[in-house]
Amino acid sequence: MKAQIITIGDELLIGQTLNSNASFIGKTLTDFEIEVLKQVVIGDDEHAILSEFETAWKNFDLVIVTGGLGPTHDDITCATVAKFFNSDLEKNIEVLKDIKERFARLNRTMALVNETQAMVPKIASVIRNYYGTAPGLWIEQDNKIMAVMPGVPYEMKKMMTNYIIPKLSGKMTASVTVTKRLTLLTTGIAESTLFAKFGDMDEFLQGAKLAFLPSQFGVKLRLTVTEVNEEAAFNKLNELEQKIRSFAGRYIYGKDEDELAEVVGNLLKERGLTLAVAESCTGGNICSMLTDFSGSSKFLERGVVVYSNAAKVELLNVDEDAITTYGAVSKEVAQEMAEGIKAISGTDIGLSITGILGPTGGSDQKPVGTVFIGICDQNGCTVHKLNFGDDRILNKQRASQAALDIVRKNILGIPLDA
Amino acid sequence: MKAQIITIGDELLIGQTLNSNASFIGKTLTDFEIEVLKQVVIGDDEHAILSEFETAWKNFDLVIVTGGLGPTHDDITCATVAKFFNSDLEKNIEVLKDIKERFARLNRTMALVNETQAMVPKIASVIRNYYGTAPGLWIEQDNKIMAVMPGVPYEMKKMMTNYIIPKLSGKMTASVTVTKRLTLLTTGIAESTLFAKFGDMDEFLQGAKLAFLPSQFGVKLRLTVTEVNEEAAFNKLNELEQKIRSFAGRYIYGKDEDELAEVVGNLLKERGLTLAVAESCTGGNICSMLTDFSGSSKFLERGVVVYSNAAKVELLNVDEDAITTYGAVSKEVAQEMAEGIKAISGTDIGLSITGILGPTGGSDQKPVGTVFIGICDQNGCTVHKLNFGDDRILNKQRASQAALDIVRKNILGIPLDA
Repeated sequence: MKAQIITIGDELLIGQTLNSNASFIGKTLTDFEIEVLKQVVIGDDEHAILSEFETAWKNFDLVIVTGGLGPTHDDITCATVAKFFNSDLEKNIEVLKDIKERFARLNRTMALVNETQAMVPKIASVIRNYYGTAPGLWIEQDNKIMAVMPGVPYEMKKMMTNYIIPKLSGKMTASVTVTKRLTLLTTGIAESTLFAKFGDMDEFLQGAKLAFLPSQFGVKLRLTVTEVNEEAAFNKLNELEQKIRSFAGRYIYGKDEDELAEVVGNLLKERGLTLAVAESCTGGNICSMLTDFSGSSKFLERGVVVYSNAAKVELLNVDEDAITTYGAVSKEVAQEMAEGIKAISGTDIGLSITGILGPTGGSDQKPVGTVFIGICDQNGCTVHKLNFGDDRILNKQRASQAALDIVRKNILGIPLDA
Repeated sequence: MKAQIITIGDELLIGQTLNSNASFIGKTLTDFEIEVLKQVVIGDDEHAILSEFETAWKNFDLVIVTGGLGPTHDDITCATVAKFFNSDLEKNIEVLKDIKERFARLNRTMALVNETQAMVPKIASVIRNYYGTAPGLWIEQDNKIMAVMPGVPYEMKKMMTNYIIPKLSGKMTASVTVTKRLTLLTTGIAESTLFAKFGDMDEFLQGAKLAFLPSQFGVKLRLTVTEVNEEAAFNKLNELEQKIRSFAGRYIYGKDEDELAEVVGNLLKERGLTLAVAESCTGGNICSMLTDFSGSSKFLERGVVVYSNAAKVELLNVDEDAITTYGAVSKEVAQEMAEGIKAISGTDIGLSITGILGPTGGSDQKPVGTVFIGICDQNGCTVHKLNFGDDRILNKQRASQAALDIVRKNILGIPLDA
C-alpha cells in the first residue's frame, strides 16, 4: 500500500506552524509497513485542494488528509471533499449529538457555528472525535481510501491510533517480505569521518540500506533491511549493528527514538545512582530534560538554577572570592558548584554547568559559547571546557546535551577525550 | 513571485525528522512578500525528484530545494539537478578549496568522499557554504529560479539569509499593493466561543483575512490585510486589532512570534520586579523557558527543582508535617513552597508548582493531571488548582504555560478567574 499525506493550512505554508502532523502520520504508517512516498502542504484554497486530491487519488492507494475541518469560515476541507467525490453534505445526527454532549460536559455554551460541523459528505463514514468537535471522514472507492482528520495534533493522533490504523489493519494483505528499520544515534563525530569508516558501502551493506541523518547534535544512522521473514530481518539488522559498533561504538549513545536524557536516566536507575544538578547558563534545561521521563524521581534528587551570584554562594557554598577572582564562568566556580550540589544533596554524582550562551556577555578571553561543565563522583571532580557557537538557543541545547553525555561517559567509564 | 518548496529526504517521509526547514523557508519567503503556495516532501529517489522538479518548474516562478547534498551514497540531489537541466557535473575549484580549508581549520583529515561535493552542475552558480561542506546551487533559466541548499538546518538558514534573500531582492519588482500580517496570541478561550464573538465575519473583516489557529495552548488569530500602501495596511491592521482587543483583550498575551515566557520576562523587567521559582513536577522547565531569552538574569534570581521531599524541606523550609498530612502535591505544600522560595531569595515574587504529570502517581482524589500553582507577592499568597489530561509532556508544557500566565495576570492585575 502506497500513501500520500496532504496537510492543509496557510499556517504551514507561511512557516507559522511546524508540520508535526505529517511527521506523526508518516511515522505511524511506516511503523505499520505502509510506504509514505509523498507529503504535500497546501493552503485553505478550494482549487489547490481539488487539484491535489486529483493527483493523489490517481497515484496512491491511501490518501491521508488533515486540517481545515474547524468551525470557522476559513475551514473548507469538508465541503471540498464533498465536491471532489460529487457527494452532498448532510447533517449527521450522531455527530451533532457528540458535539452537544461535549459542550454540556465542559459546561460551555455551544456556538451555533459548531452545528455546521455536523454536516458531512454522504459518501463518507464518520470518524468520531472524542477530544474535539470536528469529526473525521473515511471514504472508500475504487479500492482506494481517503481519510480526513482535523488538524489539531492531539485529536488527529487519537483518530490515527484508535480508528485509522485498526481499520487499515483489516484491509492489509500479508506481505511476502518483511522490512525492518534500526537507527543508531551517534554524537561527537563528523558525518564524512563516520562514512569513511564504513569502507566500501555496497560491500558493507550487502543489499541493506543506510541513511546518514546529520544535525547539530550528532549523526543518526538509519538502517533498513528487507528480508523473507521476521527472523532473517532481525538477524541481518543485528549483524549490521554489531559491525557498526565495532568501529563506532564509543560514539553511539542510543537507538531509534532514544533520547540522551532518557539513556542517562536509565543508566542511573540501573546502577542505583543518584544525581543532583547545579545549572547556571542552561537555566534548568538539563533537569527539565531528565524529568521529561517518568521515574526520574528515582535518581534526580534535586536541581538548582543559580542564576545570581548570591544564589551560587547561598545555595552551593561557592566561595565569593572565587567568583570575584576567576569570574562566575570559570573552571574554579564550575568545580565549586559541582562539589556544592553533591554535598548539600548527598547524591552519588554532582553535575554543574556555567557558561556564556550569548548573544551578550562575551569577552576576548571568554567569548560567547564558552561553557564549563563540572562533575563530581566518589573519585573526585573534573571540569571540562567546551566552546560552542553564537546562537543562544543552540548553545543551550548543545551544552545540555554535552553535560548529559559527560554523565553518560562518567557512568560507563568512557574516557572523555575519546 | 509564487514559490514552491521541495524538501528531499526519507527521514521526513517516515516521520523521523520534523520538517523545520520547510517552515523556516516558508516564513522567510513570506516575510519577504513571496507567496509560498505549496510544499512537497519526497524521498531520495531520482524518479520522484525529477517528476516533482518538472511540475514545480512548470507552475512556479521560484523553486527552493533542500536536502540530499551530503557526501554519502544516499545523497543524489546534485546529480539529479544536473540531469533535470541537462547539464554536466564539473569539479568546482573554489568549492574544493572551501572544503579543504574547512577541514584544515577544524584540524580534521578530509575524507576522499568530500571531494565529490565539489562536483556541481555547469549550469549552476555556486552558493558557498561557510558552515559545512555541501555547496548550494543557484540556477536561473526562462525567468525562473531554482535554489538548492543542504538539509542541515543551520547551513540552510545561513544560505537563505545571507545569499538567497539578498539575491532575490535584486530581482523583485515593486508591488502595487502591500500585504501585512498580524497574529494575536490568545489563551484560555475555546475556538468556537472566540469565533462567535466576532459576529458577522465578512462585516467584521471588511475584506481582510482572518485565520484561527488552535493548539493545546490556545488559539492564534492571524490577520492578513492587503492595501495600496504601507500606511493603509498598518492602519487597517491596527483598527482590526483594537476591535478584537475590545472583546477578547483579556485572553491576548502577545503578538506574532511572542512567547509567553518572553512576555512575562519583559513585564518583570519593565516594572523592575524580581522572581524566584520553586518547581517540582515541571522539573526546571519554567526556569528554562524564562532563560531562553537574553537578559533573564535581570529578573530571575534563582530557581530550585525540589524533586525530593528532602529538597523541599531543606531548601524551602517546607514543613515536613505538611507533606505528611496533605501530601507533596497539595494546596498547603504549594503555598509553603512559594513562601519559601520568596523568603530565601528575597525576590518580589515567589512562584511554585507541584503536581502529578503522569503517567503514574495518580489517585482517585488527585488524578494524573492535578497541579497546584502558588504565587506570593507583597500582598500575600494564593494557590490555584488546575486539572490537565493524561499526557506527561503535554501536561508539563500546559502546566508551565499556566504558571507563567498566572505571573502575567498577577503583574497586570487581571483577576485569575476571568
